[in-house]
Amino acid sequence: MSAHRDVLLRDVMDRIGDKWSVTVICRLDDGPLRFNALKRAADGITQRMLSVTLRRLERDGLLTRTVHATVPPQVEYALTDRGHSLHRILAELVAWTEDNLDDIRRCRERYDAAVP
Amino acid sequence: MSAHRDVLLRDVMDRIGDKWSVTVICRLDDGPLRFNALKRAADGITQRMLSVTLRRLERDGLLTRTVHATVPPQVEYALTDRGHSLHRILAELVAWTEDNLDDIRRCRERYDAAVP
Repeated sequence: MSAHRDVLLRDVMDRIGDKWSVTVICRLDDGPLRFNALKRAADGITQRMLSVTLRRLERDGLLTRTVHATVPPQVEYALTDRGHSLHRILAELVAWTEDNLDDIRRCRERYDAAVP
Repeated sequence: MSAHRDVLLRDVMDRIGDKWSVTVICRLDDGPLRFNALKRAADGITQRMLSVTLRRLERDGLLTRTVHATVPPQVEYALTDRGHSLHRILAELVAWTEDNLDDIRRCRERYDAAVP
């Protein structure tokens, strides 16, 4: 793999592994959502961080942004086929993390107690 | 899921999705490596970033650090069983990313051309 491709691969991996990207992709897997519904579903995200996350995912072709000509206009976000295919793997990663969360917490406590 | 657990889940997801964590876990899946061999295998990583990444993964119980009493002492890193189980999912994520890399690059070029 070329050095440039290697950098691009790491960049994309970093992007899709980002906690807010994972959260947004998981929330949208069940169906399209509007901005405010997404904000409520991604508990703890700021308006700005959600905007940035949505723009990055749209730029990578993982979701689409549709503006409905209502008053006021409504903006809806939906996963693309590529986004759904990524979700299948991310869901495994989330399941693994949930399964291992208690053990990881115990490991951290032991480590922090042993290392000054 | 409690709010605290949700925060911990996102924190762990962020950690294991980090590009250098993924790189280190993939390199160690074939067998233990010493620090310098890991540094060569994780092309582009700085000494400090590799140290930080290894410490975090050790703290999460994903790898072990063994000091061999040679002169000079040699430090070897190896995945734990938990680390290997995470690798199986990360390998799917890397494969997905490689399969989609060209499409994502084209999407980004289109997006950047359309959005001023």
